[in-house]
Amino acid sequence: MTDFAATKALFHLPAGMIYLDGNSLGPLPKTAAARVARTVTQEWGEKVITGWNRAGWMAQPERLGDRIGRLIGAEAGHVVLGDTLSIKVYQALAAAIDLVPDRKVILTDSGNFPSDIYMTEGLIKALGRGHELRVMAPQDVAGSIGGDVAVVLLTQVDYRTGRLHDMAALTKAAHGVGAVAVWDLAHSAGAIAVDVQGCGADFAVGCTYKYLNGGPGAPAFIYVAPRHIENCAPALSGWLGHAAPFAFDLDYRPGSGISRMRVGTPPVLQMAALDAAMDIWDHVDMAALRRTSIALTQQFIAGVEAACPMLTLASPRDPDARGSQVSFRFADGYAAMQACIARNLVGDFRAPDIMRFGFTPLFIDADDVDRAISIIADVMQNRLWDDPAYKAKAAVT
Amino acid sequence: MTDFAATKALFHLPAGMIYLDGNSLGPLPKTAAARVARTVTQEWGEKVITGWNRAGWMAQPERLGDRIGRLIGAEAGHVVLGDTLSIKVYQALAAAIDLVPDRKVILTDSGNFPSDIYMTEGLIKALGRGHELRVMAPQDVAGSIGGDVAVVLLTQVDYRTGRLHDMAALTKAAHGVGAVAVWDLAHSAGAIAVDVQGCGADFAVGCTYKYLNGGPGAPAFIYVAPRHIENCAPALSGWLGHAAPFAFDLDYRPGSGISRMRVGTPPVLQMAALDAAMDIWDHVDMAALRRTSIALTQQFIAGVEAACPMLTLASPRDPDARGSQVSFRFADGYAAMQACIARNLVGDFRAPDIMRFGFTPLFIDADDVDRAISIIADVMQNRLWDDPAYKAKAAVT
Repeated sequence: MTDFAATKALFHLPAGMIYLDGNSLGPLPKTAAARVARTVTQEWGEKVITGWNRAGWMAQPERLGDRIGRLIGAEAGHVVLGDTLSIKVYQALAAAIDLVPDRKVILTDSGNFPSDIYMTEGLIKALGRGHELRVMAPQDVAGSIGGDVAVVLLTQVDYRTGRLHDMAALTKAAHGVGAVAVWDLAHSAGAIAVDVQGCGADFAVGCTYKYLNGGPGAPAFIYVAPRHIENCAPALSGWLGHAAPFAFDLDYRPGSGISRMRVGTPPVLQMAALDAAMDIWDHVDMAALRRTSIALTQQFIAGVEAACPMLTLASPRDPDARGSQVSFRFADGYAAMQACIARNLVGDFRAPDIMRFGFTPLFIDADDVDRAISIIADVMQNRLWDDPAYKAKAAVT
Repeated sequence: MTDFAATKALFHLPAGMIYLDGNSLGPLPKTAAARVARTVTQEWGEKVITGWNRAGWMAQPERLGDRIGRLIGAEAGHVVLGDTLSIKVYQALAAAIDLVPDRKVILTDSGNFPSDIYMTEGLIKALGRGHELRVMAPQDVAGSIGGDVAVVLLTQVDYRTGRLHDMAALTKAAHGVGAVAVWDLAHSAGAIAVDVQGCGADFAVGCTYKYLNGGPGAPAFIYVAPRHIENCAPALSGWLGHAAPFAFDLDYRPGSGISRMRVGTPPVLQMAALDAAMDIWDHVDMAALRRTSIALTQQFIAGVEAACPMLTLASPRDPDARGSQVSFRFADGYAAMQACIARNLVGDFRAPDIMRFGFTPLFIDADDVDRAISIIADVMQNRLWDDPAYKAKAAVT
């Protein structure tokens, strides 16, 4: 059983701020500052080039992969870090398409993160083999997995509503028709208990700067099921995925195992920050985290709905159908969120009308939720969102 | 005129070390430690998600692009940072291929960095349109640019020998037959004066952790000539290259200008380190740098050749045909370099027999070169490389 009062003390949270945006960018683990400083001054500064071996930089993508692997139920040695989530989606999807060469349909839903869809469109165009991206409504995905589907490409937790797909059932349905499943775990890893192995997922990808608290621009991860990895010809065949990167052969030969999904030089400073964040995760019981997350989101929904009838719940009411976020719809949601932020309650706005709040038991507790409810009630009941200062829509982070 | 004694004081160099490996990984600019620490504690720690706007993280790829752009002669607003060099090669090459749709030959040379070749092989395979990668010897490139060539893809400075391609002449030759030129400036940016604009280069890419001193895993850059950018459909169409990333449309529309070459979330901590490194570069006169670099390499060649007849110069003797490195061939080069490193002279080994030394006037001066020559003379004349401790070949950084 994880002691979440203890984990909360491990984070630096800005004074007075209630931070319900850990699903966009996790806050700073206190040890990360010293870890990054050590990597800069003791490793880069003192070891310079030899840091690749002597400070373990070169092996870090696989080492971190295993630590994240535990949180998503992956087999050891089958997760690797690198690049951005968009790049990892591209790699996973390209490999998935190769596994089902006789079919042309890639099935996704409109709740998928747009970049996943953009990368898919780009890959389809590059391949030029007539693949079709079929975008369903989320609730229609299960009924659309037919015999023409090559790949089911889904983000498990909807970035706007928090709606949670049944990963096991949809993967089983995909396999039932001979398709493969690629899962984007951006809003799952560190948010809910994930079991890629138990679900039989073929590929999974995710980012590490949200619930995992790896820092702004932290690298992404990719999982490939052991049964597939030796058949995957990496779409982005960079030198660090080569069987012998330092032989400098002119011909590409993929490395063994998940390392072939590496591409170029990994971001050492970002990995140092993520490494510090994983020191916290190594001791978290994911079942306890999920229970606590559900308690917090239930408390939040009940409190906000009681105080703010003008807000419409956009997230599933059933906690089993929801990730670790709660969203409300409100026509002036952008201005309302700006008013909340001005009162030091930080959530996110997502166009056109979604006010999104993330709940991360590692550093959010029931008192924070009560305070958040009070602020939202004040903003809504006193029409603080009607202040012209908050009305101008700008690019929202 | 740049004062290189002054720039040397801006770097942290390990005590007693002569670091002739800045062409693999530049050393730590002293201000980078504080800059990164500020980004971690004051920006990530205090601003959290709002750092994307309030700390300028989101605009950093273009801001840094312009600072690097000055060093390579790019027009303002036409360089952007992100990803790794392998990914940027892929993007540039894919866009270049699109510009010459009726031809199938991609011309490169065996002195190109293997990852560029691997990424090209991968792209050709993905496209499946019968493109051919033609790999010539470096000296045969000029004579091979014929009417069937779509793209000339070259690394300007050979990573093993330092041989320097004539970028202006080869670009002109490519244009003369209707081909486009993609230049990898990995060993050029910060090493020699580059003028992509004057040369008429169509695309250029490079990394920032070598001569630019951006730190281990620092992001890559890409330049696209203004005449092409609005016709480039990015091959890796990620959300941050979208015209309106935060509109979350389901259809991809490329952003205006070079920003469309962005893919995913940029590495904020790495960019902070690079930003500090660029504070030094902003004041460097590239013509003075080149003069000093040539003086250092000439001094080094003369000294080593006089003392070590068993070493064979692998770099061009003519400084105008050479980048900012000097390489020697020696059958036991791996062991000899290990012996040098044991004496605190750090260079690189590149298979099968290349001892490689980089010269970076920002922090290497004539006294360093004299000391380096003495150590190499000691290693070679006293057969220190014959020590079994140095003989075992391992993965070399």
